[in-house]
Amino acid sequence: MGRVTTRARVRRIRPTGESTRADTLAVEEPLEMRVGGTPLTVTMRTPGSDVDLVHGFLLAEGIITGPDEISSVRYCDGVDEQGRNTYNVLDVATVPPREVTPRSFATTSACGVCGTSEIDRIRTTIPWDLTADGCRVGIDVLAALPDALRAAQATFATTGGIHGAALFRTDGTLLVAREDVGRHNAVDKVIGWAVRENLLPLRDTVLMVSSRVSFELVQKAGMAGVPIIAAVSAPSSLAVSLGQELGMTVVGFLRGESMNVYAGGDRVV
Amino acid sequence: MGRVTTRARVRRIRPTGESTRADTLAVEEPLEMRVGGTPLTVTMRTPGSDVDLVHGFLLAEGIITGPDEISSVRYCDGVDEQGRNTYNVLDVATVPPREVTPRSFATTSACGVCGTSEIDRIRTTIPWDLTADGCRVGIDVLAALPDALRAAQATFATTGGIHGAALFRTDGTLLVAREDVGRHNAVDKVIGWAVRENLLPLRDTVLMVSSRVSFELVQKAGMAGVPIIAAVSAPSSLAVSLGQELGMTVVGFLRGESMNVYAGGDRVV
Repeated sequence: MGRVTTRARVRRIRPTGESTRADTLAVEEPLEMRVGGTPLTVTMRTPGSDVDLVHGFLLAEGIITGPDEISSVRYCDGVDEQGRNTYNVLDVATVPPREVTPRSFATTSACGVCGTSEIDRIRTTIPWDLTADGCRVGIDVLAALPDALRAAQATFATTGGIHGAALFRTDGTLLVAREDVGRHNAVDKVIGWAVRENLLPLRDTVLMVSSRVSFELVQKAGMAGVPIIAAVSAPSSLAVSLGQELGMTVVGFLRGESMNVYAGGDRVV
Repeated sequence: MGRVTTRARVRRIRPTGESTRADTLAVEEPLEMRVGGTPLTVTMRTPGSDVDLVHGFLLAEGIITGPDEISSVRYCDGVDEQGRNTYNVLDVATVPPREVTPRSFATTSACGVCGTSEIDRIRTTIPWDLTADGCRVGIDVLAALPDALRAAQATFATTGGIHGAALFRTDGTLLVAREDVGRHNAVDKVIGWAVRENLLPLRDTVLMVSSRVSFELVQKAGMAGVPIIAAVSAPSSLAVSLGQELGMTVVGFLRGESMNVYAGGDRVV
């Protein structure tokens, strides 16, 4: 349980020669999330911060809106061949109890196959008016975030193979950072931490991710009331469209003092 | 339909100054896949090669084993606010007709929450014995693959925000390359192409990806009989475990003449 990295023998081939030695890998294991005993979804995640992860995921899915709606989170069954608990199944009790359906179609059958309707649906679902968040962030503050995220990523340093997400105040103060083999999981862990700290809506904050920005990440940020999302790499078309609709600032290719602002540019000063 | 990139206004901030100009984004849109009219899953993908994508996805899920089991693939309903077909819903007719259940739990409830059992299940599900593929690949061939993949990625060049996957023969000959905002989709498109060309099992081939290697990608490669997977970035723990179980060669951090071989090293000469 909670193993974030593991060791493996690796044959290293370099122009200068070969060697065989132990290397560190980021751990990937499935996590099954249940609500009231009903299986909701399985995500391939890096163990650790699982309780944050499930809080963030349930918020993003619109199943909870705050920490008081979860009365307990516990690891249940799921044993390996030696009968040991794998700690890969989490059951959440909600207040009041909620009926859930397995996620694939719960979230996606209505989802966007008809173009802009999904964006409209999400925009009206999000309980916060991001356009009302008049915060500002300095270019100098943004420029420092990738290094600050990297510095907070203990596992990336040893594996080079794990995504990071972090929440900063607009003055650059780090609130929380999390890592995961899945970028959506890293974001769920960060936002789930904020849910548990009862910090929503996350006004005056920047969500920084080590990856690209997809539609899903903008949706997750929006559900948490985050006004600014920044990424090391590129946004997708739908990420930019949704950001514009929500009034969210979307920054991509944030690498030192270079960055592209795709939406909500008035917040970047 | 089929738009792979789109244009957006972007505020470019550089140490030398600012400008506002049009930039190119990789398009992300949902694709709903149906089998016999029953919704199976929705994936956020870059339009294009959708028919390849659905062939590859259905192969990886074990719903089909070859091209003859699909009698038709057609775009159906799904209209935008102007009543235009979005080309974001694909319906597949199989021979014989198959019952499917929405994917989330169809594939994942049995999935790995108990540790090694899922790996065993996949190993026994894969219809090919990869250990019987005695192909070899030269270090010099592998070293050339990242540049060859990049050269085949037309969209990456303009957006910097899209994954690539390509299939090569072990002599370095490019068979097919595909791009997508989702790395799993890029792999499904490549393998789906091979399914349609009736090339399975893909002996003597290397699947090269521009990303990291997750459990899911090794699983997809295994279902297609690919003996060697190579990636620009890191593998996860479970990707390596599954590769070892299947007898697949797993190469990570492939960057020029430097690479790490995590499994099946006897094929790399």
